[in-house]
Amino acid sequence: MPKIAVLPGDGIGREIIPEALKVLQAALEDCPVKFEFDRYLIGGAAIDEVGKALPAETLDACKKADAVLLGAIGGPKWDTLPAKERPELGALLPIRKELGLYANIRPVKMIPSLISASTLREEVVKNVDMVVIRELTGGIYFGEKGRNENPKAAYDVLLYHEDEIRRIIELGFETARGRRKKLCSVDKANVLESSRFWREIAEEVAKEYPDVELMHMYVDNAAMQLVRYPEQFDVIVTENMFGDILTDLASMLGGSIGMLASASLSGKKGLYEPAHGSAPDIAGQNKANPLATILSAAMMLRYTFDLNEEADRIEQAVAKVLDQGCRTADLAKPGDKVLGTKEMGDAVVAAL
Amino acid sequence: MPKIAVLPGDGIGREIIPEALKVLQAALEDCPVKFEFDRYLIGGAAIDEVGKALPAETLDACKKADAVLLGAIGGPKWDTLPAKERPELGALLPIRKELGLYANIRPVKMIPSLISASTLREEVVKNVDMVVIRELTGGIYFGEKGRNENPKAAYDVLLYHEDEIRRIIELGFETARGRRKKLCSVDKANVLESSRFWREIAEEVAKEYPDVELMHMYVDNAAMQLVRYPEQFDVIVTENMFGDILTDLASMLGGSIGMLASASLSGKKGLYEPAHGSAPDIAGQNKANPLATILSAAMMLRYTFDLNEEADRIEQAVAKVLDQGCRTADLAKPGDKVLGTKEMGDAVVAAL
Ligand SMILES: CC(C)[C@H](C(=O)O)[C@@H](O)C(=O)O
Ligand SMILES: CC(C)[C@H](C(=O)O)[C@@H](O)C(=O)O
Repeated sequence: MPKIAVLPGDGIGREIIPEALKVLQAALEDCPVKFEFDRYLIGGAAIDEVGKALPAETLDACKKADAVLLGAIGGPKWDTLPAKERPELGALLPIRKELGLYANIRPVKMIPSLISASTLREEVVKNVDMVVIRELTGGIYFGEKGRNENPKAAYDVLLYHEDEIRRIIELGFETARGRRKKLCSVDKANVLESSRFWREIAEEVAKEYPDVELMHMYVDNAAMQLVRYPEQFDVIVTENMFGDILTDLASMLGGSIGMLASASLSGKKGLYEPAHGSAPDIAGQNKANPLATILSAAMMLRYTFDLNEEADRIEQAVAKVLDQGCRTADLAKPGDKVLGTKEMGDAVVAAL
Repeated sequence: MPKIAVLPGDGIGREIIPEALKVLQAALEDCPVKFEFDRYLIGGAAIDEVGKALPAETLDACKKADAVLLGAIGGPKWDTLPAKERPELGALLPIRKELGLYANIRPVKMIPSLISASTLREEVVKNVDMVVIRELTGGIYFGEKGRNENPKAAYDVLLYHEDEIRRIIELGFETARGRRKKLCSVDKANVLESSRFWREIAEEVAKEYPDVELMHMYVDNAAMQLVRYPEQFDVIVTENMFGDILTDLASMLGGSIGMLASASLSGKKGLYEPAHGSAPDIAGQNKANPLATILSAAMMLRYTFDLNEEADRIEQAVAKVLDQGCRTADLAKPGDKVLGTKEMGDAVVAAL
């Protein structure tokens, strides 16, 4: 029986995960395969309960599971802890590293009924359809870091090994091959040595994909182009920190980060989570948008379990409720009727 | 006699600098102080002529000058040279370091007649009025970099000294104090040690500026917020690489990077240049927009020479020609009459 580790986490994570599970249950009703769903603690909730952001039991369960479905973690309550014990450094980074989830994938596709939610002009974003691939277990996030005295200073090391770069570039090419065959590799090769290495490897790998067009773009220019002319992009591949910035930026094109799903993969195994955070300011109020989590669950069915039909059905159900005018607060325009978290989940189930 | 070193550089640099000089001459006609303008080689032009992107004579002249007015550098012709000899690494980074230009300042203010040139919705950008301050001589751009063998890898070190952080944060507070008194310090303190150090120092310096409101924002969120709700920002201060990305992103809010001036300062001394590059694709065709360079010249009068009145006059002249409908190709909408580089320069002179 395939196993899914469910980690609601903190803040709105505890409200959006139940909606995703509801939708999964409905979508999998007729599926011959039965899944085992087990809940575990992570983040601030785990700190409060067992004193550690990533308890051994949770990590262990995630290692044994086929897929992990995560809500969101963190909140002001834990921000005064030493950095390494906080939810982000204490759970998110280690879980990525321990599960070897080196590829973060975020599709950004305009949903026609949400065009007006974007802060960009309709004609600029209406055909946006891209995938941003971010390297997730290397680079400056995981490099040596520390302090010097006399003179006082602090440092972080950005280091990339050849194989780390090669496998993510390959995934970029594979993904582009299955789409419009355009790969944009983002770096800062005019200044950084790690970027020059990145670019060399991209050029090497390109030889194995003569059918895919590769272009290189500096990260400063990429940030600009995502706002200037986002429809030019098919697949973007980049290193960890540039990807952190560009995926969040790209998420704005669709109007709301509340719509953005993400998969963090190591081969077939994956951790699926919404691109947004735990939003402590609206937690516990039935206000959060569960759609990014629901779409993350669809990605899980597709990437880990090859249940493409079921994934399609969930995605279509989400598009349908939006077409019907269902809006959570983050998507609503003045005058729209606003649904709560639960009601939005119910609407998606009904649309299935 | 105050000295200005003029470095046209490459590509459109050679076309926009003459326009800025024309405008300066007109604006300074009645000024009792007389300026000495001297031209020097830099970038690809210098490589071609004397074999080095930053010739000793140029650097020397810049050191002796009160201000430097730079066009743009680089182009495909020199992209096959070893990285360190190329215009960017060979000239731009060393000149910043040698002149100690630690603060890059880019004002981003919406010019009402250009609202339609922005890819963001009018209601999102119409009141944009911010200054982005980027640390320019520290961090990962200037840190140790290199390669390892067995296993093959490449690295760059992000290192910041206390005094480097303190002086730029202080400039951020000073700038905010002269404006709406809101300073947003951007970092990635949830992951990077250098960012945690940055944040500590920002908190320390804040005690000396009780009248200025300080907030911290993670760089991924900042990229998002610049697109989601840019009017929230007054002054942004950040480190070198984050600043590289965010200044270019912020430049898109105004619709065209062709409008964006920048100052790189070390106290009163400054290097002034447009935020855009050398645009080899349109070089030599009288197509480039000279306004960013003209506005950079105005910044020079203001920051280095305290000629606020003359700076105001140039800025007002630019606003006026835009109000009159003058547009270079980058600003034009279908149907607009398009002016060339020279004609735009002439229009600004006439408006003075
Ligand atoms: C919380 C933080 C460590 C994390 C990251 O930067 O990776 C987040 O921003 C993300 O993008 O998942
Ligand atoms: C050309 C490059 C080295 C430079 C930088 O990143 O500093 C440029 O992008 C800039 O912003 O002035």
